[in-house]
Amino acid sequence: MSTTIRLYELTGADEHVQFSPYCWRSRYALAHKGLSVETQPWRFSDKEAIAFSGQGKVPVLVDGEQTVNDSWAIAEYLERTYPDCPSLFGEDTARALTRFINNWTDGVVHPPLARLLLPDIHNILASGDRDYFQSTREAMLGASFETLRTEREQWLKAFRTALAPLRRTLEVQPYLAGETPAYADYILAGTFQWARVCSAQNLLESEDPVAAWRERMLDAHGGFARKASLAY
Amino acid sequence: MSTTIRLYELTGADEHVQFSPYCWRSRYALAHKGLSVETQPWRFSDKEAIAFSGQGKVPVLVDGEQTVNDSWAIAEYLERTYPDCPSLFGEDTARALTRFINNWTDGVVHPPLARLLLPDIHNILASGDRDYFQSTREAMLGASFETLRTEREQWLKAFRTALAPLRRTLEVQPYLAGETPAYADYILAGTFQWARVCSAQNLLESEDPVAAWRERMLDAHGGFARKASLAY
Repeated sequence: MSTTIRLYELTGADEHVQFSPYCWRSRYALAHKGLSVETQPWRFSDKEAIAFSGQGKVPVLVDGEQTVNDSWAIAEYLERTYPDCPSLFGEDTARALTRFINNWTDGVVHPPLARLLLPDIHNILASGDRDYFQSTREAMLGASFETLRTEREQWLKAFRTALAPLRRTLEVQPYLAGETPAYADYILAGTFQWARVCSAQNLLESEDPVAAWRERMLDAHGGFARKASLAY
Repeated sequence: MSTTIRLYELTGADEHVQFSPYCWRSRYALAHKGLSVETQPWRFSDKEAIAFSGQGKVPVLVDGEQTVNDSWAIAEYLERTYPDCPSLFGEDTARALTRFINNWTDGVVHPPLARLLLPDIHNILASGDRDYFQSTREAMLGASFETLRTEREQWLKAFRTALAPLRRTLEVQPYLAGETPAYADYILAGTFQWARVCSAQNLLESEDPVAAWRERMLDAHGGFARKASLAY
């Protein structure tokens, strides 16, 4: 019996506004595999709704009897469980290198971008999520949203600088994974979708090769990511 | 007729002291392929000696009628020309991702490390190379070697921070390329060999997973890199 895959995804006040970069990684992974998915809107205050996963963060994927959390674990689960669908990684060497891309994105690209986006995200959250979000994120970043709003120029510059190795790579190949996109691209596509859904800020210069790649990622798999609801 | 592959490699005053990170990438690539190589010592002032390659930098690889310069181009040449030897990259996806590692290493890891090493390298060069090296490198870095020597703590910290995504990846897998080393590892092994050959500075904390990986890279392919002549 075929079951429907469900994905718990972070949303704003508007449940159609899905903005988590990690959830978008899983959405891209499912699209690449050609698997349909039913979104289960989730907000920060709904800890009970995902308590069955044994932890408190999304994405959480439910596939029949299986529950998987953490975007990397979800990608590996889909690869293992659906080997006849197009591979997300390619062979083991490519998977190992994709893990580096995952760590680089989370550790180097996200910190400056979070400082640009989090004050905007605060505005689009359900009222019950706002205080929690502001206090935990301000503590995490060591700065108030008010201060971060005044530092946008600095963080935009840091974000663009952080992208340098990606930029240089995309000068000579259309995707990070080469001629066609793979999970390495989806990791970063999730990052840019996070930015796109929650903020009208212009992050890239128009002639940046990363901007052209971003358009290709919005067109990928029938353009499902381009159709996402925006918060603004 | 089988010809011997020759590799023009940068050396210090002592021609056995080979310290270029890019030449070490090629040495590792040749070792991985199981190809023997004859080193052709080269110094900055020997521009004439490699003029036949149409440019002025090493590594330059000469394989029969073929001349190839630039470490990435050499790796691709070896992969293309010796397909029956173990693959340096794996499939196309892995090669595309390895290019990112190459760009990340050159653009993110090398800048702080160069600021730590270049003053030391100056001391080991042949006298005819020293003025050229100091003036071009000080202009490139926008700082005198004297100033850089006073800033070591700052650049060491920046170097260790730059390695964060590598460190996190090596916490869960023995090599950047997974269970066995590949060209992605050799890129960074070249970087650490650069440091090891020319400087006695301690770059990593002993419990750093990168330090354990560095030892594995020194053991790889019969430990040829561990046997390198050191300048100190």
